Amino acid sequence: MAIVPIPHVGDLPSGRLGSISDVPGVTVGHCTLAQGGCQTGVTVVLPHGRDLFLEKVPAAATILNGFGKSAGLLQLMELGVLETPIALTNTFSVGALVQAQIRQAVARHAQIGRRWPTVNPLVLECNDGFLNDIQAMAVTGEHYLEACRTASDQVLQGAVGAGRGMSCFGLKGGIGSASRLCPLPGGRSFTVGALVLANFGLPGALCFGGLRVGPEAEGGGEPEKGSIIMLLATDAPLDGRQLRRLSLRAAAGLARTGSFYGHESGDLAVAFSTRYTLAPEPGAEPALAMLHESRLDPLFRAAADSTEQAILNALWHAETVVGRDGHRRQGLRERLGTR
Amino acid sequence: MAIVPIPHVGDLPSGRLGSISDVPGVTVGHCTLAQGGCQTGVTVVLPHGRDLFLEKVPAAATILNGFGKSAGLLQLMELGVLETPIALTNTFSVGALVQAQIRQAVARHAQIGRRWPTVNPLVLECNDGFLNDIQAMAVTGEHYLEACRTASDQVLQGAVGAGRGMSCFGLKGGIGSASRLCPLPGGRSFTVGALVLANFGLPGALCFGGLRVGPEAEGGGEPEKGSIIMLLATDAPLDGRQLRRLSLRAAAGLARTGSFYGHESGDLAVAFSTRYTLAPEPGAEPALAMLHESRLDPLFRAAADSTEQAILNALWHAETVVGRDGHRRQGLRERLGTR
Amino acid sequence: MAIVPIPHVGDLPSGRLGSISDVPGVTVGHCTLAQGGCQTGVTVVLPHGRDLFLEKVPAAATILNGFGKSAGLLQLMELGVLETPIALTNTFSVGALVQAQIRQAVARHAQIGRRWPTVNPLVLECNDGFLNDIQAMAVTGEHYLEACRTASDQVLQGAVGAGRGMSCFGLKGGIGSASRLCPLPGGRSFTVGALVLANFGLPGALCFGGLRVGPEAEGGGEPEKGSIIMLLATDAPLDGRQLRRLSLRAAAGLARTGSFYGHESGDLAVAFSTRYTLAPEPGAEPALAMLHESRLDPLFRAAADSTEQAILNALWHAETVVGRDGHRRQGLRERLGTR
Amino acid sequence: MAIVPIPHVGDLPSGRLGSISDVPGVTVGHCTLAQGGCQTGVTVVLPHGRDLFLEKVPAAATILNGFGKSAGLLQLMELGVLETPIALTNTFSVGALVQAQIRQAVARHAQIGRRWPTVNPLVLECNDGFLNDIQAMAVTGEHYLEACRTASDQVLQGAVGAGRGMSCFGLKGGIGSASRLCPLPGGRSFTVGALVLANFGLPGALCFGGLRVGPEAEGGGEPEKGSIIMLLATDAPLDGRQLRRLSLRAAAGLARTGSFYGHESGDLAVAFSTRYTLAPEPGAEPALAMLHESRLDPLFRAAADSTEQAILNALWHAETVVGRDGHRRQGLRERLGTR
Repeated sequence: MAIVPIPHVGDLPSGRLGSISDVPGVTVGHCTLAQGGCQTGVTVVLPHGRDLFLEKVPAAATILNGFGKSAGLLQLMELGVLETPIALTNTFSVGALVQAQIRQAVARHAQIGRRWPTVNPLVLECNDGFLNDIQAMAVTGEHYLEACRTASDQVLQGAVGAGRGMSCFGLKGGIGSASRLCPLPGGRSFTVGALVLANFGLPGALCFGGLRVGPEAEGGGEPEKGSIIMLLATDAPLDGRQLRRLSLRAAAGLARTGSFYGHESGDLAVAFSTRYTLAPEPGAEPALAMLHESRLDPLFRAAADSTEQAILNALWHAETVVGRDGHRRQGLRERLGTR
Repeated sequence: MAIVPIPHVGDLPSGRLGSISDVPGVTVGHCTLAQGGCQTGVTVVLPHGRDLFLEKVPAAATILNGFGKSAGLLQLMELGVLETPIALTNTFSVGALVQAQIRQAVARHAQIGRRWPTVNPLVLECNDGFLNDIQAMAVTGEHYLEACRTASDQVLQGAVGAGRGMSCFGLKGGIGSASRLCPLPGGRSFTVGALVLANFGLPGALCFGGLRVGPEAEGGGEPEKGSIIMLLATDAPLDGRQLRRLSLRAAAGLARTGSFYGHESGDLAVAFSTRYTLAPEPGAEPALAMLHESRLDPLFRAAADSTEQAILNALWHAETVVGRDGHRRQGLRERLGTR
Repeated sequence: MAIVPIPHVGDLPSGRLGSISDVPGVTVGHCTLAQGGCQTGVTVVLPHGRDLFLEKVPAAATILNGFGKSAGLLQLMELGVLETPIALTNTFSVGALVQAQIRQAVARHAQIGRRWPTVNPLVLECNDGFLNDIQAMAVTGEHYLEACRTASDQVLQGAVGAGRGMSCFGLKGGIGSASRLCPLPGGRSFTVGALVLANFGLPGALCFGGLRVGPEAEGGGEPEKGSIIMLLATDAPLDGRQLRRLSLRAAAGLARTGSFYGHESGDLAVAFSTRYTLAPEPGAEPALAMLHESRLDPLFRAAADSTEQAILNALWHAETVVGRDGHRRQGLRERLGTR
Repeated sequence: MAIVPIPHVGDLPSGRLGSISDVPGVTVGHCTLAQGGCQTGVTVVLPHGRDLFLEKVPAAATILNGFGKSAGLLQLMELGVLETPIALTNTFSVGALVQAQIRQAVARHAQIGRRWPTVNPLVLECNDGFLNDIQAMAVTGEHYLEACRTASDQVLQGAVGAGRGMSCFGLKGGIGSASRLCPLPGGRSFTVGALVLANFGLPGALCFGGLRVGPEAEGGGEPEKGSIIMLLATDAPLDGRQLRRLSLRAAAGLARTGSFYGHESGDLAVAFSTRYTLAPEPGAEPALAMLHESRLDPLFRAAADSTEQAILNALWHAETVVGRDGHRRQGLRERLGTR
């Protein structure tokens, strides 16, 4: 049994599942590669279960530290929409998944790149080269499709999917998720969910719910080459400008775990709303009442808290992994002696 | 005597003075207005003691949350230089200080706005309207000049200067400062100094060196209308792009005190280097060896730590103040019962 | 009679008035100071005739070249709203008008800066120091109020208001305005209107509807210290993100007149929509159908064309002015010998 | 013989070669695929002939309209360096070239993604789907390497390399290049070179050196789905912030040809300097005298003029091409009847 229970961040309550899938319709899938020096994978987050090219969702991003090779953010920031699943993987597999997302969209819509505009793949990455033989470029389009097929509202966390080979504060990092409920006047509430690919942090700098976890063990000599991808979902009716504001607040949750947005850490956040969708061609545009700007604070707080919680959850769930050249990252629970 | 000593943030050592003036040449001055409902003032930070229009310093900024009325940042971000003292004051006094900075520069250089370009005033603000009768617009250009006259390397902190009327986490906020030394290979070191005008934070959300300070007392009913101005100085040879990166790291220190960059909180950071200066007209440009990008991490860490420390120091030094309509903000030490 | 008629830019038709006030509700007012070395003034643009603090309009901006001292753009870009009239004036009068806008808003709403947030003044500027004794800082809050009082849909152009002392391509610049109608499927149309404060351009670089106007005359020795403020209004239902995109297209119209966005030219554009308003406090948010993104192209074209047209109109209407120290800027029509 | 000679844009003189390779050290290579429905290719621009990962060059970018899928710009904008050749290709081939650039760098440096950081591929794209069967994804890494092998200072223009399938103003577009010399005080000069991948513009909107070229012919029914990539090289000593400013001025040249930065046109510019290089690890940083800001105007003008000239050159050199499903784009010279 755990001696140190996983702390609850902040005062807002968690959703039922305690993951990004508490936002209705959001699902997550993984494909994990774990054999010898190949410790990597793919994670996908789907805003809804329908065709994203036909029913785009509003989205925005914050590039906190642009030391990264993610694809698709320029168009997402310009147009404010997401039109593919969000794919997470390792740095050298972005190209393969970009191609896979194009093929997936073209297979459904033969007019993409012909009568219709091209599709904008969204593939976000961290560098798992400490545990994974990243030069092998082992991830393929088939792995992406497999991750899509497994998507459900039951979110596996830790050393799975794209998180398989990731490191965090000199410990084993990976995928974490969390959610928070934001009460509204009148008894209703909005949900904010977070999912992170956590691969950042200097050994010894982790602040785990107030507890500072020291650098005694391995990893000390390895310079930080981290990154974190932070995804936020909400069912609140926000437009692109508001979602950009929401995405920035992930930076607060990140800092509270011990990050100072290190030079080599490609830190970025993407936020989307599931409240409404946008069609590829004009028609009857939906008439929407956007959330009043002064109602954003509970959502901002939820974004920070659920991001911090998701990072703690990634660390908590990640098992110890041994990979390339015998490199080893210890899981937090093993480090704390709590298994 | 204090029961709870003021904590030292992080592992890097502080400079000798424990303030932004540990960066050689940097001085700080205040002019404080404290009479009845008028609780406000001016604080100035001077990168060096010479003429800033003739010897501009490289500078950059991060607009974390643009809910604010500060002046001068557009040009600073475009050209990467600072050519006036940095002035801090309340929101409704920006116009008066903009005029004062123009008059100060024109008095020295009759060709400004004639043969030479105009001068770019830099006036940053927070809203002290809870304690201060901000509508009175009591601050004048003379107060600005008085603050300049008092500038020294002895930095008064707390409820002084522009900090006189500020609130922070439902407590008394104001001016705080701190510094950190960043060791270099070879035994030398760079210094990063921070000075903040702290006027942000929801009552009860303060995390004071690991201690969460609750919202028992006054201020609970008052919605958050905060802001924070975070200034960073360094003697490291950084260019504008690097200073922009440095300024962002103030956001990490801010988050660790309990902020999630609230909707109404105009949060911004300005960073400058004192290592070299830039002349208004071309001549013999200085040949400079800029810091290698991979050497930035210790400076980034110092930026985050000194910002957090400066906020804690602002709270620590701020006395209880009673102002407009009997509004009262309790000082942290009084709250903790440690005087 | 004119030998060279003023050209019509592009293929889209102009609105009835041929000015920004073709967007229903928009009005423009001027206060002109023209005595000896004092050749300056104030121009205001009002999106509607009601209280802008209570009925804010959606707005956005593009900072094309941030060598400028305009006030209010940080908050406008963050929150996507305009809550005061747009004021134009000379560089050294920004502070005075910032104060005037605060006083105007506080006079109407005693809770501003107390229970309500502060107001965000929007004051945009160019440097008229060649013709105007800018150091005299002659513009006052009373001039601002006078400009507001004169606002109507009859837009005076040329050497009036804030345009009084401005120079453009070595000729007399100033205020210009224009509009374009964008046909919609179904026979309706949207309107885009532009108003510029034109104070940019190297002598001899003007391209006036295909005609390049040479630098024969005065001004040749005077280095370029220009700037241009470009305002765009529309009645199309655009959100903040879309308005930002619209505002960028002013840059295309500007370039076609001969600008390359010179180093010292503070070039910026602000766009707003009159289609809906936003209240300061939450209530019944309006349900709006935003324009489909793929419908933006006619508006983008109209933004470019009406901006170019407004610049040509500013030059066309501006009379020769003699100001400070006998400095003289010739009007284009006089240069062309068409009076 | 040509009836309409190709016009010289602006007053600055061209370099000797009239292309981007007038900047010493810059070379350009192409690999062209032209068979039936496959009309596409790769173009590379190399800042120098040495190893770019070891000798990175300073660089920056402007995202004028982010409707595009280019890879590598986030990191380029954050760190201000270019560490691979610049690759141009069609939209659906970005993934393949990202992988090819990774393999190329790893083949040279086995520590990339292990002890060293990963490499940042830079692959910029336009959509050639009208003439090219873009869904076939015919471009491979071998084509990229072939383009690198052919790089020289003799720049082929028109329907070659990545330009093979591109369209521009309803005519045949493609690769164009140009250069301008900027005189300095003292008799020396700097060079600015431009290379564009031109695939933008509504039929009939082309302004070819003052001549408006009408839309009589084909392409009228095809909606605009263009884009343009604009590359600028210079030997002037500029830092990242200054290069960002330089890159923006490409937008002026673009507008003068008839573009208003259409909604679907992914318009972006990248600028780099060959004056100095940056090593991957700290050592003896070079001491550099950066260009004084007030000396930028001739470079800005050269950036605008050489970009416009490069676009005109692309149109001038492009032959008529027939591609996918018999789609045809007429070359400008054929349209003008000048062959």
